[in-house]
Amino acid sequence: MTSKIDPTAFIHPLADVEDGATIGKNSQVWRWSHIMPDAIVGDNVMIGEGCHIASGVVIGDNCRVQNGCQLFEGVTLENSVFLAPNVIFTNVKFPRSHRKGKFEKTILRSNCSIGANSVILCGIEIGTWAMIGMGSVVTRSVAPGVTAFGCPAVAKKNKNHHLEKLNI
Amino acid sequence: MTSKIDPTAFIHPLADVEDGATIGKNSQVWRWSHIMPDAIVGDNVMIGEGCHIASGVVIGDNCRVQNGCQLFEGVTLENSVFLAPNVIFTNVKFPRSHRKGKFEKTILRSNCSIGANSVILCGIEIGTWAMIGMGSVVTRSVAPGVTAFGCPAVAKKNKNHHLEKLNI
Amino acid sequence: MTSKIDPTAFIHPLADVEDGATIGKNSQVWRWSHIMPDAIVGDNVMIGEGCHIASGVVIGDNCRVQNGCQLFEGVTLENSVFLAPNVIFTNVKFPRSHRKGKFEKTILRSNCSIGANSVILCGIEIGTWAMIGMGSVVTRSVAPGVTAFGCPAVAKKNKNHHLEKLNI
Repeated sequence: MTSKIDPTAFIHPLADVEDGATIGKNSQVWRWSHIMPDAIVGDNVMIGEGCHIASGVVIGDNCRVQNGCQLFEGVTLENSVFLAPNVIFTNVKFPRSHRKGKFEKTILRSNCSIGANSVILCGIEIGTWAMIGMGSVVTRSVAPGVTAFGCPAVAKKNKNHHLEKLNI
Repeated sequence: MTSKIDPTAFIHPLADVEDGATIGKNSQVWRWSHIMPDAIVGDNVMIGEGCHIASGVVIGDNCRVQNGCQLFEGVTLENSVFLAPNVIFTNVKFPRSHRKGKFEKTILRSNCSIGANSVILCGIEIGTWAMIGMGSVVTRSVAPGVTAFGCPAVAKKNKNHHLEKLNI
Repeated sequence: MTSKIDPTAFIHPLADVEDGATIGKNSQVWRWSHIMPDAIVGDNVMIGEGCHIASGVVIGDNCRVQNGCQLFEGVTLENSVFLAPNVIFTNVKFPRSHRKGKFEKTILRSNCSIGANSVILCGIEIGTWAMIGMGSVVTRSVAPGVTAFGCPAVAKKNKNHHLEKLNI
């Protein structure tokens, strides 16, 4: 099989990147992270320690996925998404041990950021430049540029609040 | 010592199943999971990546324990329990660094499901077919068939709500 | 380079303690934990499985850091701090993928305890003997001896409540 791991990518010896995974230019995969076949990781992406990137996941260029994040089939990150440590995704709404539920798709638009230890319900969209506070339980889609947090996460600040702070 | 790992079980080479752990028929233990001595895992159980199953834990048949779950001494799962990723148990109510607290028992009855990134206080019982929403902080027992979620988790739907949905 | 790992310390063969990390007397580092250069771990400390201790972190004597905790640059634990499983720290308030934010310092005073699956905002202080309930999202400093919990964590009990319970 032709390797899909770019020669400029760094794979830590303690990581497990399976055959058939795609890893782009200058991307990094750190200790105890597992990238499954048919996962696609773009260029200049950092995947921290202890992450799980399932088959069918797509991660755009310039994303940063911190330690302990878990992305399951149906999750797509556009470019420049930031996931703080231990962001957990789901792909079935009402799971039971004895059946395989219907997988629902989740998309994170470019430049959004998700706070540490947040969990994201499947089937939603998080808008570009949105910022989700740490420890959030995100059960509904979040509009572009909005800051949302809490359990469940609700929008708390006007659009573009953080864009202004960024001075970019 | 007689091995207690059934020959039909699959133990990933990067997992650490210690001598004295019991693993039933057709069960699986994936990467970077640690099963301690005197833990008991039943038949047809899936233990995902990065899980910790402590001594004295009992996991019934047909359970699914997703990535990153941590089960400590005193935790029992009956049959067909579903733990979504990063479900964390506790076994001491008021821990301090300098003392070993009293361990309290926690039991999850058959067919209940616990949502991703939830944490379960020790000393409680979660009823059969109960469903705990993701990101919940479960501080009290949950009755059979009830859906509960939030921080702290409270019952939100009538008994059997999800049983009906399941059409079983 | 002179080793800074005390000969009485126990490092599990599956842990990764990098050159330049300091590990004190009788301390333990368990499976799949990573201690980075210039992290300082005191005496009689227990670091569980799957922990990440970044450069610049300081952990005092007699601390217990349970499985899955993640401590980043700028975090200091004084002596006898207890971190339950999956306590996550942060060091940037408004992270984005494309920039390196300003790191802020977080200090946990001696003998405080943090509940399982809690997340701690950077730039705050948790007072001596404080107790943070499980699943908390800690966004503000917590005074000494106070019990606080919730999302966001708020003080719920009078000072010294738990000191009394401890009978010490």
